[in-house]
Amino acid sequence: MRRIKAIVYGVGAMNSVATRMMLEKGVDIVGALARSPQKVGRDLGEVAGLGFPTGVVVEDDPERVLSSRQADIAVIAVASYMSDMYEHLRRCAEHGVNAVTISEEALYPWNTAPMETAELDRLARQNGVTITGTGHQDVYWVNLVSMVLATAHRIETVTGRASWNVDDFGPEVAKDQRVDTTVDDFDTWLAEADRPPSFGRNTLGALVEDLGLTTVAVESTTRPEIAQEPVRSESLELTVDTGRVIGFTDVDTVKTHQGITLTFEMTGRLYLPGEADINDWTVTGEPELHLSNPAVPTGVTTCTQLVNRIPDVINAPPGFITMEKLPRPRYRTYPLGMYVHERKRFLRRGPLS
Amino acid sequence: MRRIKAIVYGVGAMNSVATRMMLEKGVDIVGALARSPQKVGRDLGEVAGLGFPTGVVVEDDPERVLSSRQADIAVIAVASYMSDMYEHLRRCAEHGVNAVTISEEALYPWNTAPMETAELDRLARQNGVTITGTGHQDVYWVNLVSMVLATAHRIETVTGRASWNVDDFGPEVAKDQRVDTTVDDFDTWLAEADRPPSFGRNTLGALVEDLGLTTVAVESTTRPEIAQEPVRSESLELTVDTGRVIGFTDVDTVKTHQGITLTFEMTGRLYLPGEADINDWTVTGEPELHLSNPAVPTGVTTCTQLVNRIPDVINAPPGFITMEKLPRPRYRTYPLGMYVHERKRFLRRGPLS
Repeated sequence: MRRIKAIVYGVGAMNSVATRMMLEKGVDIVGALARSPQKVGRDLGEVAGLGFPTGVVVEDDPERVLSSRQADIAVIAVASYMSDMYEHLRRCAEHGVNAVTISEEALYPWNTAPMETAELDRLARQNGVTITGTGHQDVYWVNLVSMVLATAHRIETVTGRASWNVDDFGPEVAKDQRVDTTVDDFDTWLAEADRPPSFGRNTLGALVEDLGLTTVAVESTTRPEIAQEPVRSESLELTVDTGRVIGFTDVDTVKTHQGITLTFEMTGRLYLPGEADINDWTVTGEPELHLSNPAVPTGVTTCTQLVNRIPDVINAPPGFITMEKLPRPRYRTYPLGMYVHERKRFLRRGPLS
Repeated sequence: MRRIKAIVYGVGAMNSVATRMMLEKGVDIVGALARSPQKVGRDLGEVAGLGFPTGVVVEDDPERVLSSRQADIAVIAVASYMSDMYEHLRRCAEHGVNAVTISEEALYPWNTAPMETAELDRLARQNGVTITGTGHQDVYWVNLVSMVLATAHRIETVTGRASWNVDDFGPEVAKDQRVDTTVDDFDTWLAEADRPPSFGRNTLGALVEDLGLTTVAVESTTRPEIAQEPVRSESLELTVDTGRVIGFTDVDTVKTHQGITLTFEMTGRLYLPGEADINDWTVTGEPELHLSNPAVPTGVTTCTQLVNRIPDVINAPPGFITMEKLPRPRYRTYPLGMYVHERKRFLRRGPLS
């Protein structure tokens, strides 16, 4: 076991928290990358709001940082979709650096971005490194659910419901989520919108793969969430009247050859006072099963998974290895150590200390 | 992969359900064992209430059944404590038959029955077989909890609460659980009772082991549960008056060198109308985390775990392998297949088909 050397790739809200967690867990930060001129050139501790300097300067040249630091892993929090992530992940693979990301689509991108994923898988294998998507959804939408399903004798349906508060992410996200539009305007937007597949597709894809099932049909629908009483939006600085839109819910359904139907409902809307993020799953069959994580702190658990998964990703065989193929998630005590898989050590192109 | 050959060891309520589940999952039942003259000599399907004959006759000679059926595994549901289980598990090991049991203490018996466990571990290794305790607690009290803990950055306390309805287990259990005694009588009984460690000790032992912690101190207390209103007991055919005992709660606490305190509260009492078994866990630290399994069907999930764990136990390395060391629990589709670990195949004394 030796200390892990990590590059902080993207210094936004999530990676600022992850940076503190990594330092507290004994990870050596050997580089930091950002694009914003307001961040580049400053100490990572300052940019991440840690209250102390880290001695690591935020840089803007990924090629140079990835090629010069002998890092074990890049910890990436820059974008949600594979179309935006491809270049970042390709760079890591080509420089022989493992990559872990909270990109939502990267959780299980084989069904929604198969070409990019296959090419990244090939590059990763060629360079002896692993690429994995993780985050809150790794445990709460896939691995915990899979473990509850492990106590079923026979599954008929699996139905998950999760929510997030649009007010937590600023006015742009609130507008994207159609807050304060009319239902008619929402319906017009929805009919014309060219939206990418929801992340529910990736979640259900991972569950189907994990259960050893095969997909017959996929269906996705979206419904507006409507104010039943006036609802305050702090990010938009207005109150949404009764009957107007406070967000929407994406519903993804997968039917399988084995007769099991999986559904995931993801709601992003304004919360009423006292509401919190939910994670509720119901399984029908024998027996009926329920899982609930009241007041689940989605943002924090996204950061903890990004950090706690680091040893699993470093130690995994090379390729685009989705999280349901990694060892089960575990609590990590200080220090967050690593060893390198012998085959990987052999395959890896870059120097190893 | 080939079909699994199992011996049903004990034909009571739990193994009757497990027998049906095994048959539905394609397991070959090659023997059945019971002691009661009302069961011995009859077809297993009849004794287990399956509604059809299985062609397997219930026998009463474990040595003969274990030595003659070339079984892969014995599925044991006969007793809760290691003192009662020792002979059954020893026999299985000596005849080269893997064993899986829902004995509660066998979940993690290293802390409460270290001598018996070490001896069984030695015998199992010598004979190339695995012994594992599982049941509801495998997933709901250990593995699910461990997975929620995997999303913590820093743990301070882990507190679990579970309950069972004493009325589900007949009048003897209700009396053992002190139903309808006065609080004074309860206190007198508690002061004099020579009770074995509660199963909370085994649950917490498994969690401590799984988290990689070390125990400093263990504390166990018991408190009466008192009727806040008149409560009906169907098993005792009486109504318990307000202020009298309706059961009790065992509270086990483990303090660790690492500063993390784990507590498990197990309540067995009469339920009020509408109440169901609970499984609620709270984690403090960063962040605060919650897990809840509303209306958890403890009896059924005990049987599903007993069956779904079979391939893990057969494929595990030899020894007394507690469940937190097995692969993560998984849903099992038909057929429940197996392969045999090469080292184990080499070590195993008995014949292999």
